[in-house]
Amino acid sequence: MPAVIDLVGFDADDTLWHSETWFQAAHVEFERILGGYLDLADADLHERLLATERANIRLFGYGAKGMTLSMIETAIALTAERISAADLHRIVALGKAILQHPVELLPGVRVAVEAVAATHRVVLITKGDLFHQERKVAESGLADLFQRIEIVSEKDERSYARLLAEFGTAPAGFAMVGNSQKSDIAPVLALGGWGIHVPYPLIWALEQAEIDPAHPRFASVARLDAVPAVLADWS
Amino acid sequence: MPAVIDLVGFDADDTLWHSETWFQAAHVEFERILGGYLDLADADLHERLLATERANIRLFGYGAKGMTLSMIETAIALTAERISAADLHRIVALGKAILQHPVELLPGVRVAVEAVAATHRVVLITKGDLFHQERKVAESGLADLFQRIEIVSEKDERSYARLLAEFGTAPAGFAMVGNSQKSDIAPVLALGGWGIHVPYPLIWALEQAEIDPAHPRFASVARLDAVPAVLADWS
Repeated sequence: MPAVIDLVGFDADDTLWHSETWFQAAHVEFERILGGYLDLADADLHERLLATERANIRLFGYGAKGMTLSMIETAIALTAERISAADLHRIVALGKAILQHPVELLPGVRVAVEAVAATHRVVLITKGDLFHQERKVAESGLADLFQRIEIVSEKDERSYARLLAEFGTAPAGFAMVGNSQKSDIAPVLALGGWGIHVPYPLIWALEQAEIDPAHPRFASVARLDAVPAVLADWS
Repeated sequence: MPAVIDLVGFDADDTLWHSETWFQAAHVEFERILGGYLDLADADLHERLLATERANIRLFGYGAKGMTLSMIETAIALTAERISAADLHRIVALGKAILQHPVELLPGVRVAVEAVAATHRVVLITKGDLFHQERKVAESGLADLFQRIEIVSEKDERSYARLLAEFGTAPAGFAMVGNSQKSDIAPVLALGGWGIHVPYPLIWALEQAEIDPAHPRFASVARLDAVPAVLADWS
C-alpha cells in the first residue's frame, strides 16, 4: 500500500527531551526519605506508589503535581502516619524540582524535526500537565517548527480521532512518532495510522505496552534522526 | 460603532457552574485543621496561603492540585513543621474533594448558551487543570453546545489573540462572557473585543480587577440568561 503521509505527530517527553530521568531521580530520593522509617526490603515501595498513582490518575491526570500528591499519600500510608512534616516537605520539593528541571533535547532532535517539517505538516502532541508542558515547549526552542501544539489529557484512540478530524487528515495520512508504545503507537495503529517508535532508556510502568514488530505500519528506530528515512521508505 | 459579533466565548468555572464555593469550603476546613496548631487570630492564614499560591503559580499553574500543594507548604511553614502526617493527609483529601465535586450549573445557563448558540458561534474558554476541566465539561452536559472547548494555561491578551487567530475572528467580532474581570474581560477589551461580566458571589483574590463600567464595549449582568439581550443590543 503506497501511503501519502502528510501529517506527522511528535510526542514530547522522552521523545524530544529528557523527562522520565527526572521522575526516576525523584523516585530514588523518595525511597531514601522513606528509608528513614521503613525497611525498604520489605516495603514494596514502588508497587505501593504505582498502585496509588494508578488509583489517583482518574482524579489527577498525568504530571508532576499529581505524582507529588500520590507520593505524599503513599508516604503517609506506608509510615502509618509517622512521617514528619519536614520529610513531607522534602517530597513536595521533589515535585517542584521536576517542574523546574531544564529542558534538554535528545540527540538529533532538531535536525530530525526540521527535516520532517520540510516535507510534511508537523504537530506536537503531548499529554500531562498543561502549564508544565507549555513551559517546556517554550523553553525547548522548537515551538516554531510545529504547526500546532496539542496538549491532551489522555492519548487514546478517541483523542487522536478528534485531533485528526480537527487537522482534516485521515488516519492513513498520519504518522505518530514517540517513545511510548501505549500512548504514541498503539492507538494510532488501531485507527489505521502509522507509528514510529523511538524508545527512551527509561519508561514509566503505566506506559508499557507491546506492539507486534511485524505490524505493516510500524517501525522502531534508535534515534529521532532516523525518522525522515522511515517516512521516505513508506512513501 | 455597529458591531458584528459573530463569536461568543464563555468562561466555565463560576460562569457556567459553581467552583469557587468548593475552593472556599476547602479553605474553611484548612483553617479548622491549622487551628489545632496556631492561634488563628495572629496567624494571617489567608495572606500566607495567598502568598504561597502566588509564588507557586509560575510552577503549578491554576487548579486544585497546585492549591493543595500550596496548602501543604503553608501548613508546614506556619506550624514550624509541627503538623502531623494525619493532618497533612486531611489537606490532601480537601484537594481530592474539590476534584470530585459534582458539576452544578448556575441559574439560566443552559437556556442562555442555547439562545446565544442559535445566533452566534460559541466556544468555551477556560483555564486551569486540563484533566479536571475536561471532566467538568463532560459532566456538565453542555459540551455539545460549543464549537470548541479551549483549555488554556493563562487567560491573557496573548492567549486570546492566539485563539482568535485560530478561530479566524477579529477582536471586534468577539465577545467574552465570564465572572472574572481580570481573566475574562480586561484582556478582551484591551484587544478590542467585547466583555460581558456576570459576577459570581465569591471570587479568588488573584482574580480581582476593576473595569470602568462606562467602557463602551462592556456590560455587567446579574445572570447568564441576560446575555442574549446584551448581544442583541450591541448588534
